[in-house]
Amino acid sequence: MTGVRVAGVGLTQFGRHPERTGRDLFGEAALAARKESAVPPEDIESINYGNFMGSLAERQGHQAPLMAEMAGLQCPATRYEEACASAGVAIREAVRTVRSGEADVVLAGGCERMTNLSTADVTEALATAADELYEIRAGMTFPGAYALMARAYFEQFGGEREDLAHIAVKNHDNALPNEYAQFHRAITVGEVLDAPMVSDPIGLLDACPVTDGASAIVLVSDEYAEEHDLDAPVSITGSGQGGDNLALHDRENLAVTPATERAAAEAYDDAGCTAGDVDLVEVHDCFTIAEVLALEGLGFYDSGEGIGAARRGETTATGKLPVNLSGGLKAKGHPVGATGGSQIAEMTRLLRGDHPNSEHVEDATLGVTHNAGGTVASAVVHVLEVDR
Amino acid sequence: MTGVRVAGVGLTQFGRHPERTGRDLFGEAALAARKESAVPPEDIESINYGNFMGSLAERQGHQAPLMAEMAGLQCPATRYEEACASAGVAIREAVRTVRSGEADVVLAGGCERMTNLSTADVTEALATAADELYEIRAGMTFPGAYALMARAYFEQFGGEREDLAHIAVKNHDNALPNEYAQFHRAITVGEVLDAPMVSDPIGLLDACPVTDGASAIVLVSDEYAEEHDLDAPVSITGSGQGGDNLALHDRENLAVTPATERAAAEAYDDAGCTAGDVDLVEVHDCFTIAEVLALEGLGFYDSGEGIGAARRGETTATGKLPVNLSGGLKAKGHPVGATGGSQIAEMTRLLRGDHPNSEHVEDATLGVTHNAGGTVASAVVHVLEVDR
Repeated sequence: MTGVRVAGVGLTQFGRHPERTGRDLFGEAALAARKESAVPPEDIESINYGNFMGSLAERQGHQAPLMAEMAGLQCPATRYEEACASAGVAIREAVRTVRSGEADVVLAGGCERMTNLSTADVTEALATAADELYEIRAGMTFPGAYALMARAYFEQFGGEREDLAHIAVKNHDNALPNEYAQFHRAITVGEVLDAPMVSDPIGLLDACPVTDGASAIVLVSDEYAEEHDLDAPVSITGSGQGGDNLALHDRENLAVTPATERAAAEAYDDAGCTAGDVDLVEVHDCFTIAEVLALEGLGFYDSGEGIGAARRGETTATGKLPVNLSGGLKAKGHPVGATGGSQIAEMTRLLRGDHPNSEHVEDATLGVTHNAGGTVASAVVHVLEVDR
Repeated sequence: MTGVRVAGVGLTQFGRHPERTGRDLFGEAALAARKESAVPPEDIESINYGNFMGSLAERQGHQAPLMAEMAGLQCPATRYEEACASAGVAIREAVRTVRSGEADVVLAGGCERMTNLSTADVTEALATAADELYEIRAGMTFPGAYALMARAYFEQFGGEREDLAHIAVKNHDNALPNEYAQFHRAITVGEVLDAPMVSDPIGLLDACPVTDGASAIVLVSDEYAEEHDLDAPVSITGSGQGGDNLALHDRENLAVTPATERAAAEAYDDAGCTAGDVDLVEVHDCFTIAEVLALEGLGFYDSGEGIGAARRGETTATGKLPVNLSGGLKAKGHPVGATGGSQIAEMTRLLRGDHPNSEHVEDATLGVTHNAGGTVASAVVHVLEVDR
């Protein structure tokens, strides 16, 4: 079985792009990834594309062949949809395709255009990641769902809004030097606590923004990289996916995320590593409480122990386990179908040493990315390692 | 590399299910496939699920984990979307997953609920498989798109509406004994020609219906089938996928389908067969002209030669190459996200000898299925073979 290397990454600026369509955004990211990879277009054998709400936001289904055109490629293209983990599953399948020998080169990533919808419409579109019959009809929105999870956590394990506020502050700090981030603005714990309440205990600054953006990566086999003398020091050495019941009412405990635990166990086993080997992490912090749940699900903290991590400085850029050096979904932005690819792109840059935050983690050799769908009814975890 | 066997298939009745949701339909098909396969649920390692318009028709995105629940399974589940070829790509990826050794057992299939939408709304939803900027906004609907393809064909190669009418008549005849088919009604060439015109030359009886339904198959490795002494005589021996420009205006010739040609070439090469080895076929006949284009793209006829096949009796149940013995999309029905799985299920039944139309093809050993997305911007072809 061959290894899988990241030959190139491409990102658009995350933020508002009122004059650009989804196809424009993905085309830009794909061409950037192609250029960085130095792989000729005819060698790219397929495209794995993640998107969640294009049918609702742009009335454009069947996007995959369109995105192939925009990437300047003539090859089979498939769309993967797993709510906010859409690009995560697209990349996971690309890793498996290269490993199996079915292809030597795959372009994978995703895109979402969201800011063209009103806040009400995008809230409704995002809600389709929850259970339509039993959650959406009862008024469920995603801030509401994660508020329930946060409340369950506080009740079982303790913790308070101020602990969560430190996560938002940290991730905004991390985004400051990231040229692709949506927000370049430092915030304070006081500002987070004083921000308008969205769904108690989730305030406005506990939530990630609505974002347009795209991500793409070019994955190649070890053999292809060697034959073509590519500069591709980062490999994806582990991949895992986990599932859970879609609706919160079908879960035994809202303060844990078994889908993440399952995905992490598979990815660590695949890579032959443990949580203890991990130097840095990009996790799916759609809300501040989600970062806590992710760190515990990934095995960095026992249940109930992750809540104070940012407040204690353990997950800051200079802490023992830097989390979301990209700025995370919270500050880099969350174009849902692109996010899983963005995490891989950012981790690759961090490990290669060409990310503005690489200076904080010069010795890092092993990074983990965690992409979640809905209220973590699905999760995808990848392990990345760099040749030093 | 292991072989891949179809251990069980499951279908719902195709047609109108006003009192059932998509989750109900897929659950029924998945449980039927599980039951027929005799595989214990804990052995099923993942679910590959195809769906096209659930976000529009049921406001339900992120369907894959929900469908895992409905199938009574606790495993990772991923949604694949490729317009009307959604289940085709879901199954293709399942085949590759089993072959690569990543899993021994995968449940794959798809579902669509469409009849809960009005004709206007379902037409608009289906149109999202075309190019939103340059086709849909100009008034493109799918009958209109295929009418353009039919006109281009007639102009280049000749043929007339009566040739197409024979395809509709044949597929309705084939559906008569199929318990899962939407239509159990024989029609005549005269009725097809006299039916209301939808988009010249496509009349109402040249078009497939709007359908609710689901399909599921359980795929296992050769080794798993042997170890567990499964009754699984049918193997998927070839898989191919092809892409093309999404919009018709980007194509050089509307009367050919390169995506099908590419998918077929890959699938035949994969199976080590040629078009000449094929005993029977299920093709994507969303409109009668689509069957002609498919038969030519699959290499059974040269360009311009497929048009009279049904009229000449070559593709009827007792002809030299029976096409769409299930009744096809035209008469069995076309719940778009389920169709690719339905084709594999029907072909499996035909080859095993337990399909009501198996009596016409008792010596058949090799069958091909062809599933297309949009105006064949994407195509998936599978080769199935039975142990005799």
